Amino acid sequence: MLGVAGHGDQILFDLFIIFAAAKVAAEIFERLRQPAVVGEILAGVLIGPSVLGWVKPSELTHALSEIGVILLLFTVGLEVNPGALLKVGKRALLVAVAGVILPFFAGWGLIALRGEPTVEGVFMGAAMVATSVGITARVLAGMGRLSMEASQVILAAAVIDDILGLLVLSVVSSLAEGMVNYREIFITALVVTGFTLFMVFVVARLVKKSRPAIERLRVGHAYFVVGLLLCFGLSLVATIAGVAAIIGAFLAGMAMAEAAEDTELSRYAGGVTEFLVPFFLVGIGMQLDLSVFKEGSVVMLALVSTLLAVLTKLIGCGVAALPMGMKNASRIGMGMVPRGEVGIIVAQLGLSLGVLSNSLYGIVVFMAVTTTLIAPPFLNILFRGEEIAPHPAEEGVVDRQLSELE
Amino acid sequence: MLGVAGHGDQILFDLFIIFAAAKVAAEIFERLRQPAVVGEILAGVLIGPSVLGWVKPSELTHALSEIGVILLLFTVGLEVNPGALLKVGKRALLVAVAGVILPFFAGWGLIALRGEPTVEGVFMGAAMVATSVGITARVLAGMGRLSMEASQVILAAAVIDDILGLLVLSVVSSLAEGMVNYREIFITALVVTGFTLFMVFVVARLVKKSRPAIERLRVGHAYFVVGLLLCFGLSLVATIAGVAAIIGAFLAGMAMAEAAEDTELSRYAGGVTEFLVPFFLVGIGMQLDLSVFKEGSVVMLALVSTLLAVLTKLIGCGVAALPMGMKNASRIGMGMVPRGEVGIIVAQLGLSLGVLSNSLYGIVVFMAVTTTLIAPPFLNILFRGEEIAPHPAEEGVVDRQLSELE
Repeated sequence: MLGVAGHGDQILFDLFIIFAAAKVAAEIFERLRQPAVVGEILAGVLIGPSVLGWVKPSELTHALSEIGVILLLFTVGLEVNPGALLKVGKRALLVAVAGVILPFFAGWGLIALRGEPTVEGVFMGAAMVATSVGITARVLAGMGRLSMEASQVILAAAVIDDILGLLVLSVVSSLAEGMVNYREIFITALVVTGFTLFMVFVVARLVKKSRPAIERLRVGHAYFVVGLLLCFGLSLVATIAGVAAIIGAFLAGMAMAEAAEDTELSRYAGGVTEFLVPFFLVGIGMQLDLSVFKEGSVVMLALVSTLLAVLTKLIGCGVAALPMGMKNASRIGMGMVPRGEVGIIVAQLGLSLGVLSNSLYGIVVFMAVTTTLIAPPFLNILFRGEEIAPHPAEEGVVDRQLSELE
Repeated sequence: MLGVAGHGDQILFDLFIIFAAAKVAAEIFERLRQPAVVGEILAGVLIGPSVLGWVKPSELTHALSEIGVILLLFTVGLEVNPGALLKVGKRALLVAVAGVILPFFAGWGLIALRGEPTVEGVFMGAAMVATSVGITARVLAGMGRLSMEASQVILAAAVIDDILGLLVLSVVSSLAEGMVNYREIFITALVVTGFTLFMVFVVARLVKKSRPAIERLRVGHAYFVVGLLLCFGLSLVATIAGVAAIIGAFLAGMAMAEAAEDTELSRYAGGVTEFLVPFFLVGIGMQLDLSVFKEGSVVMLALVSTLLAVLTKLIGCGVAALPMGMKNASRIGMGMVPRGEVGIIVAQLGLSLGVLSNSLYGIVVFMAVTTTLIAPPFLNILFRGEEIAPHPAEEGVVDRQLSELE
């Protein structure tokens, strides 16, 4: 009895349309042997304001999209062993640094060549730096390739990339506001590095030790409840420290990984993730605004910046990973290409600070969405073959089922 | 990289606080051997605007709460056999009718005795009619008692109650607007009855027949995807037809029940439900506004109307169910007591139509929340003992695991 007959419900309408469009597109793309994520993002472009206009970005779609990518990174974290990630730490650091320097100067240079103000250029550079690990993680998890060495390097490099990107953004934002406060930026650097190291080295151990305490809880589905609390809690702390919420969620997942083995956590979290990830993917697609592309020069600049965005990560990260072999280098380079929602957030910040014009904002969003569409098919090819182990997710489920039947 | 260091994220803050408060309260109530749902609703009262004010009702909390109760009824539907529900149809019809007539006239009479306008009285009556089946369903599912005959009667009566309540509300709303359009109300009655019969008799068969088609889908987790689409789609259709979204969701769950046996649907849907139901429960508690209770007469009226709300459902539904024995009659009567979010929605409609004063609105919300808090402890006692079968949820999981291992 939600009201008197005859009017539907906006929340349910948005929910149904987004989920249906995403899943129909995923089905079509699966049949074409293309990555489902690309289909789901394109579904967002199609139903979004740019084309059909069935759904507009709203507070609700934004929130579901944010919760979706947070849970995605949390479930990815659940499959990752912190030890394995630390082992590739040095290589990942090199990959991240190279993948920051090259795109930043390429973006800056591109705008400088056009003779536009420096601040606009450095902001473009900062937007080119931002890697969104969500898309790559989704593709690799779907293929059961999260435990490969190249995947571990991508995940670790994405964490470091986020910290470096934050620092670049701090410098760039204070430039936009007129002066650079080096002391503040130094403090930011300390806080985020400290936060990450604390999470990696301390939280996982704390969680492992608290397993007996979790066992004693009377609340239903205790591991799932504790897992979600850790996920949202650390995501919140991450945003307070200044890094992306997804970094907190990923580290929370990693911290729960060992403690929550053989529990209902991962299959329950899997359900929530499968429900919410389409909102994340469609949400990216919906951001694309094709109306800025009226002039040829804007289209040209959008294409060139997308090309640069792809090549600089591919080459920068790839060269840094070359000692791992050509194949792994190309996997890692391609894995770092998608800019996704992180690039869009940087663009929104630039718009709100008044340093990005509307057309440059549209170009950055185009670059963020397009890099996110380009990478998955290549990841599919690069990670195909070479089956190294049964699908980790499925393997986990079977293990858990066996242990529950005992 | 959600922004520059130092500011958190409102969405994550609300999410974390609501989930944490709900689950801490659930843990405390479980230890006190009290129903967790009561704890979670009281957590909402505590963190809501009435007491601590940590979280305010927002578009987001409203949406998560709505999606939560929809998924709750969907997962309850997954455990219910349509045939068993139809078998108790006549009894449920009597229970529903008695449970509509008594509360309506009690609410009307109470306001009439105070000499207030008739329209206000009939609106109070309509608000007393509204049963929210979500709370009862949650308690019974948690106790593994959904397959008992009394539970079946409660679920079927709740569906019929919703249709009758909608018709009462149509009459009352048109009274508030000055004249009753009998033709429109007749059409409403036809539409909602037709919708419900169509869902019960046609959709379940269609879904069952489409099982081979679902098997051929390439999209990941096909049963879960189809289940969610049916759930949101039928919830949306329900709101368009005029009934509550939860009725559509419940019927969608029932339609999927047979087709989705031995699939990942119920454990994935279970994960989403466990995640979102706290937002539904806390959302109810947050609505409670204690600030209207400054005068003794308002407090008195609130207490009397709550008492009447409990007694009229208990006696009305109970007497109609008496042929099933005293114990079942009291179970069914108590199961129909919670007014929950449905009563709150009626109150909001009355406020927006200008027929409920602020203090009467506060009284109706108080009645809705309090009836929802009163019922679960009694349900716990009335349904305790008499173990009739293993926990259906757990039984389902084990079956599915066995079949997946084959």
